Amino acid sequence: MAPNPGSKVFNQIAIIGVGLIGGSIARGALEKGIAGEVVLFDGNAEALKRAGEIGFGRPAGSLAEAVANADAVFMCVPVGAIGVVSGASVVAMKAGAILTDVGSVKGNVARDFRALGRTDIHVIPGHPIAGTEKSGPDAGFASLFENRWCILTPEARDDADYVAATDRLAAFWTGLGSKVERMDAARHDLVLAVTSHIPHLIAYNMVATAYDMEAVTEGEVVKFSAAGFRDFTRIAASDPTMWRDVFLNNKEAVLEVLGRFEEDLTALRKAIRNADGQKLFDTFTESRRIRREIIDAGQDTASANFGRDKPKP
Amino acid sequence: MAPNPGSKVFNQIAIIGVGLIGGSIARGALEKGIAGEVVLFDGNAEALKRAGEIGFGRPAGSLAEAVANADAVFMCVPVGAIGVVSGASVVAMKAGAILTDVGSVKGNVARDFRALGRTDIHVIPGHPIAGTEKSGPDAGFASLFENRWCILTPEARDDADYVAATDRLAAFWTGLGSKVERMDAARHDLVLAVTSHIPHLIAYNMVATAYDMEAVTEGEVVKFSAAGFRDFTRIAASDPTMWRDVFLNNKEAVLEVLGRFEEDLTALRKAIRNADGQKLFDTFTESRRIRREIIDAGQDTASANFGRDKPKP
Repeated sequence: MAPNPGSKVFNQIAIIGVGLIGGSIARGALEKGIAGEVVLFDGNAEALKRAGEIGFGRPAGSLAEAVANADAVFMCVPVGAIGVVSGASVVAMKAGAILTDVGSVKGNVARDFRALGRTDIHVIPGHPIAGTEKSGPDAGFASLFENRWCILTPEARDDADYVAATDRLAAFWTGLGSKVERMDAARHDLVLAVTSHIPHLIAYNMVATAYDMEAVTEGEVVKFSAAGFRDFTRIAASDPTMWRDVFLNNKEAVLEVLGRFEEDLTALRKAIRNADGQKLFDTFTESRRIRREIIDAGQDTASANFGRDKPKP
Repeated sequence: MAPNPGSKVFNQIAIIGVGLIGGSIARGALEKGIAGEVVLFDGNAEALKRAGEIGFGRPAGSLAEAVANADAVFMCVPVGAIGVVSGASVVAMKAGAILTDVGSVKGNVARDFRALGRTDIHVIPGHPIAGTEKSGPDAGFASLFENRWCILTPEARDDADYVAATDRLAAFWTGLGSKVERMDAARHDLVLAVTSHIPHLIAYNMVATAYDMEAVTEGEVVKFSAAGFRDFTRIAASDPTMWRDVFLNNKEAVLEVLGRFEEDLTALRKAIRNADGQKLFDTFTESRRIRREIIDAGQDTASANFGRDKPKP
């Protein structure tokens, strides 16, 4: 049975990687009392020191020391680093502990975790759908996960110990304020390609195109960016290493969705070239409906411009 | 010489089209005292009535009545309607009055205005770089233009009357809180294709692609939209008629910028297919710099996620 959310779920957790997500888990776990102790490690000594100063938990002297007594180890490193860092961690982990992650691609993690050969620890990949365009320990805050989804992609096993471990991890995320969903890893990777990976790729690409055109437009892209472009630059300010790894590790789903995006864009380009106003109008009208669904689902603010311009009432 | 900003610039203005932009000009002009009287007209009787109720000014019984005594007539209708509505207006306008607009494409407006044949009125196309994804009279608010750019694309004339009229219109926009820039119409259309038109087209296209994929993803695109996709849906919730007209009327610049965007996207796709992590990393790193420039230029908030998630301090 799952523990009650809000009460202590783990005596000790280890956070490996103290950036935006790792830092936010650490702070949230301590503030909400769902972990008795948080032990931190990061390959970047400066970031680790800073995380300790902020109060994210106790910095450990080594990876092995950080994970040795943890009931759950959270790999909060870029997707491309999860395999190797996990490999270095499992040798020091205690039997019965949970090994999880927070990466945006799940197919590889499940495979990498399975390859580690420790059958006496519970590998449960995870992905909190939360974040901002900021990175590093100072970007973390305890309420980052509130009312956001966290997807777990457990292995297809029904032995009682594994099921109990999965319930316990779900209770931890619930304790952080998340809504938890369990999903097949391949399905996760396709859905996230649509909702996250391709939008980020397109935003990065738009910014690159605009940057190349600055020679023609003489600095006016930045000056007049409030016309819509600035929204793309926020997304495109996200961590480059994290996103490089996402695209390298979710290649198949990304290329499939990108192919569909390009087909649709070709149709819109043709409509513009042929002055097919009806096709443009119909496409643009349909889009409004999906925005309404997202607001109704509580996934975004209904305020104009995300409320950032703070219009006077 | 330009009048002082903040003092009355026009005795009477006419707002033709009482949506987000027209309504915001009307309300701002009255609140800030830069117009003595605001007369309104809209082909949609319901919207016109509502604008009068909100207090945007005095609804007129006809287009001719609305413009007859106006010192400045603001065409706040979709780009595709500016030509025909202006043609119906100029016959009733008084000599020496200003005819301007707020459309997102300027090349056609200058041409359409010139074709009207009234040499005794001053045609000065304009474009306030401000807006939200909302439409209709209830979306308007007086502070919409504060600290936003307004681009005027006056004709290349240096007679004193025309220059004085342009200065007066600039003073009006300054009075609304805008920063005013004068620019060649063709240059405006290229810059805005980069900063606004292509970002909107891409956002609309991304939403259409995601919508088509809902059959595969079973409603999960909306559910997990906070991963990045929701930002695209905000932009893609903008007025369909307005945007149809933008693409039909700025075809040349839009197709040029779109061509560059597609070239860049092909290069990123190739990098993903070939697992060229360095190319991805370099592109993503460059994007952060332009975001920084935009924040430094005061064009967007530095708050994470536009501040919409309101993290606790």
